[in-house]
Amino acid sequence: MATQCSSDSPAEGGPISDCGSRGPDGSAMAFSLTATCGRSSARAGILQTARGAIQTPVFMPVGTLGTVKGITPGELESTGVQVILGNTYHLYLRPGTPVISLFGGLHGFMNWNGPILTDSGGFQIFSLSGMSKITEEGYAFASHIDGSRHMLTPESAVDIQATLDADIMMCLDQCIAHPADRKQAEEALALTTRWAKRCLDRKKDLARPQNALFGIVQGGMYSDLRTRSVEELSAMGFPGYAVGGLSVGEPSELMYELGAHTLGILPHGKPRYVMGVGTPKDLVEMVGFGADMFDCVIPTRNARNGQLFTKTGTINISNARFRTDTGPVDETCGCSACWSYSRAYLHHLYRSRELLSYRLNTLHNLHYYTRLMADMRNAVEAGTFPEFKEAFYRLREG
Amino acid sequence: MATQCSSDSPAEGGPISDCGSRGPDGSAMAFSLTATCGRSSARAGILQTARGAIQTPVFMPVGTLGTVKGITPGELESTGVQVILGNTYHLYLRPGTPVISLFGGLHGFMNWNGPILTDSGGFQIFSLSGMSKITEEGYAFASHIDGSRHMLTPESAVDIQATLDADIMMCLDQCIAHPADRKQAEEALALTTRWAKRCLDRKKDLARPQNALFGIVQGGMYSDLRTRSVEELSAMGFPGYAVGGLSVGEPSELMYELGAHTLGILPHGKPRYVMGVGTPKDLVEMVGFGADMFDCVIPTRNARNGQLFTKTGTINISNARFRTDTGPVDETCGCSACWSYSRAYLHHLYRSRELLSYRLNTLHNLHYYTRLMADMRNAVEAGTFPEFKEAFYRLREG
Repeated sequence: MATQCSSDSPAEGGPISDCGSRGPDGSAMAFSLTATCGRSSARAGILQTARGAIQTPVFMPVGTLGTVKGITPGELESTGVQVILGNTYHLYLRPGTPVISLFGGLHGFMNWNGPILTDSGGFQIFSLSGMSKITEEGYAFASHIDGSRHMLTPESAVDIQATLDADIMMCLDQCIAHPADRKQAEEALALTTRWAKRCLDRKKDLARPQNALFGIVQGGMYSDLRTRSVEELSAMGFPGYAVGGLSVGEPSELMYELGAHTLGILPHGKPRYVMGVGTPKDLVEMVGFGADMFDCVIPTRNARNGQLFTKTGTINISNARFRTDTGPVDETCGCSACWSYSRAYLHHLYRSRELLSYRLNTLHNLHYYTRLMADMRNAVEAGTFPEFKEAFYRLREG
Repeated sequence: MATQCSSDSPAEGGPISDCGSRGPDGSAMAFSLTATCGRSSARAGILQTARGAIQTPVFMPVGTLGTVKGITPGELESTGVQVILGNTYHLYLRPGTPVISLFGGLHGFMNWNGPILTDSGGFQIFSLSGMSKITEEGYAFASHIDGSRHMLTPESAVDIQATLDADIMMCLDQCIAHPADRKQAEEALALTTRWAKRCLDRKKDLARPQNALFGIVQGGMYSDLRTRSVEELSAMGFPGYAVGGLSVGEPSELMYELGAHTLGILPHGKPRYVMGVGTPKDLVEMVGFGADMFDCVIPTRNARNGQLFTKTGTINISNARFRTDTGPVDETCGCSACWSYSRAYLHHLYRSRELLSYRLNTLHNLHYYTRLMADMRNAVEAGTFPEFKEAFYRLREG
């Protein structure tokens, strides 16, 4: 593993050192690559935040309302979770930033002391608010809870995330539905770039080196527009970049094509975050394309629907064949659900809609995801990522 | 504390030693009193089961379907829970005894290694099954889940509880609604006595010394019928006795009157269990009348409705005044919810109907109940139960 911030021992691919310096967003975040795969674009690295180091590639569980549903921060930590995601839109509406500011931010409010990344709120306005209007200024929207009217601008999105004290903030962007025509995609891209500049300016003004701000690449399913978005954003010099607008209903092949293209042209030495992705297969593919960070509701939401991930594929615990199955969900899994309970018990809890069902299922899936990411990190560092990937698919077919 | 099973050091009130011997139910259960209060009927003791000792007075959380809702066995143990209750009716229907028998009983199925008491199922048939018919033979009833038809007899109630491997089984009894006229109460009492004899006979045949069988006193709100029930049951020589048919809608004063009367005439040296009771105040009063064991859904169900118990009284966490309250639910409480989270956070979780809300609220209330019982035990052993009781009420009025 490369020594961080050491100019005399560059890792393969070149470490990026921000030590002692500040990025254009005014943050002190540092990212260094510890290994890259010679036979794919996969890489392993360390993202240094004010609240500790994150080993990448990393998966971030979604903690929408200041809680990863049903799970305590202590359990997240012992499951190997390094960083969680909070939703700005949801937290702004409930409990509201005035409440969270009483605790100095989201960490104190929810008792999670590790790093937090927050989204900007744009995607939720796009998907949840029945009434929203987008202008050059920002989003005017009605709350999905009580219909109250609000305005979210690039500046207020940064301000809210600063109140949440997110270790990593996201720029406000314009999300578009799939399919979208080229003109829509081009206009959304252009607005996203103008908003990114406004977010960056606001972030600089705040003088908060403990919070980093990432840019979000848009451009729909048009690779030349993705290229344009990458060029415009990288010229601004963000400490990290996200690929937005994927996993919005397009086929997997198209998502992989756009993901590979976009990840391939993003700055090599900065963290690359693929938003809202994905299934275990998606993560393996995207890591192969050079992705470092992910968030998705799949492990947690699917757990609550009885879907459990295992090395040999996914199972639905409600299936009648598990009624008398005394074995664990996955014999190779080290989570407390697999160690302490049988498939028959988890089947019974799920069929009975017991609270403990959602909790144990979620713990299991989070453990699966954190182990998958750790396995990929280890494989990249051992120079065996292609072999890992091959074994991943072979086990699932067997 | 008296040495258990030592004939040369009898505790005040006289220890009951079944050591090496078997009770009329064929069980090896032993109960010894370690202290009695000279100024009330309160007492402290140790109930020795095949799965460890239970210090009394004790509260048993309800684990209806093989889980105390939302809480793991490890958390129950660290909260000070010594014994839990399982519902025979529910477990018989779901997952069914054939499934639980694959695990050698309920302990293995749910991964709880401490003692378990199961009820007989009669009360749930009475309260949940829309269609049930009682005859000398037993209850014919329709499942509240799928309408399927079943028969529960005194013998099958014991058999099912033996399959669950309950450390303490309960006799099948006839529950009556309140108010009930004297004739109804008298008939139900008589049937309960005849069924108790059948349960005891079945229990003897099973030759399972690891499981004890308790008798249940009925008699409605008629103290002379309660006396008759106690006489009939105690003549059979159960290793423990329950007071059934309380907390069925009668005023508190009437419940206390019947509770005090019945507890006062039950065999001194055997454990006395007041079923389905109650509020913190109910527990304090009943311990003062000589009760040793309780079960009730109040701490767990009320937790899921946002009601939290504290030394100074109950609060509803959904109350708007907690929205910005950065303090813990109870500053004197040692539970993980009070140590790690604020009232504002718990308010937010509850208002958002987050899974973690039900879990943290339940942990808090169970901690309150186990501490209340431990405080009463300690007070009895210190000879200060009346002072404890006075302080209990004073704090709640302040």
